[in-house]
Amino acid sequence: MQDHITIARGGSRPVAAGSSEYFTGAVTVEPLLAVVEPSRLAGARVSFAPGARTAWHTHPLGQTLIVTEGTGWVQQWGGPVEEFVEGDVVRIAPGVKHWHGATDSVRMTHVALQEQQDGKVVEWLEQVSDEQYGRG
Amino acid sequence: MQDHITIARGGSRPVAAGSSEYFTGAVTVEPLLAVVEPSRLAGARVSFAPGARTAWHTHPLGQTLIVTEGTGWVQQWGGPVEEFVEGDVVRIAPGVKHWHGATDSVRMTHVALQEQQDGKVVEWLEQVSDEQYGRG
Repeated sequence: MQDHITIARGGSRPVAAGSSEYFTGAVTVEPLLAVVEPSRLAGARVSFAPGARTAWHTHPLGQTLIVTEGTGWVQQWGGPVEEFVEGDVVRIAPGVKHWHGATDSVRMTHVALQEQQDGKVVEWLEQVSDEQYGRG
Repeated sequence: MQDHITIARGGSRPVAAGSSEYFTGAVTVEPLLAVVEPSRLAGARVSFAPGARTAWHTHPLGQTLIVTEGTGWVQQWGGPVEEFVEGDVVRIAPGVKHWHGATDSVRMTHVALQEQQDGKVVEWLEQVSDEQYGRG
């Protein structure tokens, strides 16, 4: 049975380096919430050193980024690089191929929220090349 | 059409006092994200002065609180008051009658996340009396 109220203590969560399969540069990922049905929400706090970014990816039901530190870049495939800062909320629509990360000079941390569909919250694609990133 | 990527700037969101229908004490509510289907996620940053708390309420698909400041209390109907602190993540299961707020001596801020079902993210119930709150 699902407990009625659960408190996951801040110190109890492993903070891991982001996999080099899905990220470029120094990234840490702190899982905040896994899917507990009937909710379909999952979330993590992700911190990017300057120059670090995700690979290109899509989310079946979209993604929301609550920016808690620094300055970052986000880009959808074929679109301009857009800058965001602490306090901003970035929303990416379902199925939109995109990446996000720090700028090349300032670190960035966000809480990333995504909803599960058919057991998946993300589809990872190719890395963001230095050339693609450098256009920011 | 839904924009592919939208950035809501931090300074652009109205921060309002929490309605006295749903809260006791000094509470501010900053809406962070409204439901944009097919996502069903909504969220707000809520800040409670010492002694302030929500009314009793339920969420059809549960609620997640990402605690970003201070020390708070949460209680489900008939259960003990539980304390949480900055860095903790509190999850309340669907349909569970509960309240949350600051402790009586320290303010508390959290990001509250809930998912919509049949057009609703919350059902508000009666206020938390001083006696109920004081048992914390």
